[in-house]
Amino acid sequence: MTQKRKIKLGFILHGVGRTWDDWRHPERNVRASTNFPLYRKQAQLAEKGKFDFLFVADSLSINEKSSPHYLNRFEPLTVLSALAAVTDHIGLVGTLSVSYTEPFNVARQFASLDHISHGRAGWNVVTSWLSDTAANFGRKEHPAHSERYRIAAEHLETVQGLWDSWEDDALVGDKASGVFVNPEKLHRLDHAGTHFQVRGPLNIDRSPQGQPVIFQAGASETGRDFAARHAEAVFCGPADLEEARLYYADLKSRAHKLGRKDDLPFILPGAAPIVGLTEEDAEARYQELVALTSIDTGLGFLSRSFNDHDFRKYDLDEPFPEVEHIGNESNQSASQRILKRVRKDNLSIRQIALELATPRGDFVGTPTQVADALQNWFESGGSDGFVLFEPLPGQLDLFVQHVVPILQERGLFRQDYEHETFRENLGLSIPVNRYAVGRKQAG
Amino acid sequence: MTQKRKIKLGFILHGVGRTWDDWRHPERNVRASTNFPLYRKQAQLAEKGKFDFLFVADSLSINEKSSPHYLNRFEPLTVLSALAAVTDHIGLVGTLSVSYTEPFNVARQFASLDHISHGRAGWNVVTSWLSDTAANFGRKEHPAHSERYRIAAEHLETVQGLWDSWEDDALVGDKASGVFVNPEKLHRLDHAGTHFQVRGPLNIDRSPQGQPVIFQAGASETGRDFAARHAEAVFCGPADLEEARLYYADLKSRAHKLGRKDDLPFILPGAAPIVGLTEEDAEARYQELVALTSIDTGLGFLSRSFNDHDFRKYDLDEPFPEVEHIGNESNQSASQRILKRVRKDNLSIRQIALELATPRGDFVGTPTQVADALQNWFESGGSDGFVLFEPLPGQLDLFVQHVVPILQERGLFRQDYEHETFRENLGLSIPVNRYAVGRKQAG
Repeated sequence: MTQKRKIKLGFILHGVGRTWDDWRHPERNVRASTNFPLYRKQAQLAEKGKFDFLFVADSLSINEKSSPHYLNRFEPLTVLSALAAVTDHIGLVGTLSVSYTEPFNVARQFASLDHISHGRAGWNVVTSWLSDTAANFGRKEHPAHSERYRIAAEHLETVQGLWDSWEDDALVGDKASGVFVNPEKLHRLDHAGTHFQVRGPLNIDRSPQGQPVIFQAGASETGRDFAARHAEAVFCGPADLEEARLYYADLKSRAHKLGRKDDLPFILPGAAPIVGLTEEDAEARYQELVALTSIDTGLGFLSRSFNDHDFRKYDLDEPFPEVEHIGNESNQSASQRILKRVRKDNLSIRQIALELATPRGDFVGTPTQVADALQNWFESGGSDGFVLFEPLPGQLDLFVQHVVPILQERGLFRQDYEHETFRENLGLSIPVNRYAVGRKQAG
Repeated sequence: MTQKRKIKLGFILHGVGRTWDDWRHPERNVRASTNFPLYRKQAQLAEKGKFDFLFVADSLSINEKSSPHYLNRFEPLTVLSALAAVTDHIGLVGTLSVSYTEPFNVARQFASLDHISHGRAGWNVVTSWLSDTAANFGRKEHPAHSERYRIAAEHLETVQGLWDSWEDDALVGDKASGVFVNPEKLHRLDHAGTHFQVRGPLNIDRSPQGQPVIFQAGASETGRDFAARHAEAVFCGPADLEEARLYYADLKSRAHKLGRKDDLPFILPGAAPIVGLTEEDAEARYQELVALTSIDTGLGFLSRSFNDHDFRKYDLDEPFPEVEHIGNESNQSASQRILKRVRKDNLSIRQIALELATPRGDFVGTPTQVADALQNWFESGGSDGFVLFEPLPGQLDLFVQHVVPILQERGLFRQDYEHETFRENLGLSIPVNRYAVGRKQAG
């Protein structure tokens, strides 16, 4: 009998908020983004709810126009290491860019986190060749889009190679003979590639997971191929279930064509549930969120999807203007989606702007309604689970208290952690070291 | 009335051991170097002893000949972040090389650690342009010695500049008006130097210390000048009190000539106390350590100080041979010191080899004898404090239980932590942000 497929749940620690104006909520600490006690509290709450993992996003540059949750943030590896010391079971996934880091340093930091946490590290692999970011790293130009992913793939493969430096039994530690390490089981990588040349071995022994779990968030064509080939889980941001299903089917199909037989990667859309004890309570909480949103923020979102078009020149409460011809080329799907939404309910500029800044999504309702919606996405080809945001203070607590037990009753979510490592709790096995594989084949 | 000068105490977390053979002690865990519970236990014990700081050393390459405590180790920033979550007062000093890191990443990780720990971060600035290390970072060559320190200085100054990106009151967080940040108090660094070009601002707000504490370990001429100019504390390894005094006087004089008026940097020699409840007990513990040492390890040390001369061709129990002419040029002081020591007691090759591998130092004895020796170094111009190693399991516990109270009784060491931050506990003030200084002068 095969085990029933379970929903994977992650929680994203985002400090002051998920959107531009969340920080204005009366109960938000405006310094939340660098407040470790708050991070610890949320992490322990998510662990109480048996979540699979915590997720820390990242970015590498700011300017005057940056959103509050971008302006000020913990560096992911440091805060995840600190959280490792105050949690026991939950996975710890951090974003780290391949663009301005050395594979040797990246491999070490994640291997170290994996040791500290007894096997709970995950790496969300991103590239970050934006011109603003380049200026923080002494670069004036950045490589072409397709080239970026070739660099990313080589960086990742180098890191994964370094993680195999030590075979499981390389550290002998025989006090009588004085043999500390078996040199035959300690391997140089000798990677000599196009973008990286790294000798190895890594100066930290094999970590409990062997290979920390690989996350990715591919959206473009090359990004999707990268995710399909390399990721074990993908964090994505579909606007609705229809878009989620298309993305899900596309990514699984790409992975299958690339020869993956494990039905990976897991597809995990972001979700921002607003749980109320009644429908009215939930709606009131959502409206509380909407009320925080300034029209400036909304117009900013709108404008970015229409090639920076200035919508202030219209009466904001009149019907939406004819702007089909100014859709942003690099963001065509966003402008199309907005126009479709506007036409459906004949929205004004103000209405669509505020809605964009405060997306409602499918997950506003009573605990049962939220559980139903999550189950629907999960069972109808929309997702393998979710990465949850906390759109309002207190929502994680409500979710853990009221939604998790429903999912558990339905057999859709774990009753407790069943394994030691993040990888095993996800249902993945610990990979055999590449050099041990070679030895087994030769033997 | 000025406060009495106090001894500064650090504890170095070194996993399996301080020397090549310590790991063979029956009570050592051979996996100590990646055992977080052990690190936590030592950290909490040092904090119970009111130590100023924990210290984590580092290196960036290994080979078959590397010592066990080099082969396998935590990455410093990750393990210090984890320790930040399970301690409350003790400083957290980590080694990080400027050679293969980006100033923006380094500034972020230490600022993040400083936030997580509520003001307890310290950076031990090192350069690491060894050819073995270069091979792990895609470099075939490394810059000339003097050039390395110019790069190090520019890297450090860039990091320190980024730490001032946010003035103390840049994060406004006014919920009513919707103003999150005051753009006039958020600064680009716009550093355009010889080796680094970094725009800024840093994407994390000003940390509790403003500027994490800077450590260094300069030994060469250029290294000493770098330490004298930039460091707030220096970790050094003099062989005896005489050498310590010379180093102390030299470094303080260099700092003074460079215009520093604060009597910094603090000079902190390494020390490896072996405390026994009686003299016999202490001696027996030291002999226990000597007994762990293999003659191979000792000959390795000896050979490295004499240009890799092969001492196995002599009878190891005969008097030391005439080898004055083969002193290692890059390590002249070490070979001179060995010859002086050999002549003093007419030692055999075996005797000096084992002694080199297991240096006895001045700190073997009863709690009172060890306290006396520390006080003597501290009061006779040898040091401002010490970085303690734990040469045998259980020694930190003995030191905290028996030596610390004596130092406290004598008024040489704190009774309790008096401030929030590491910097203030060291007796240093929180630096005023460079942009606020400018504003004050203009006002």
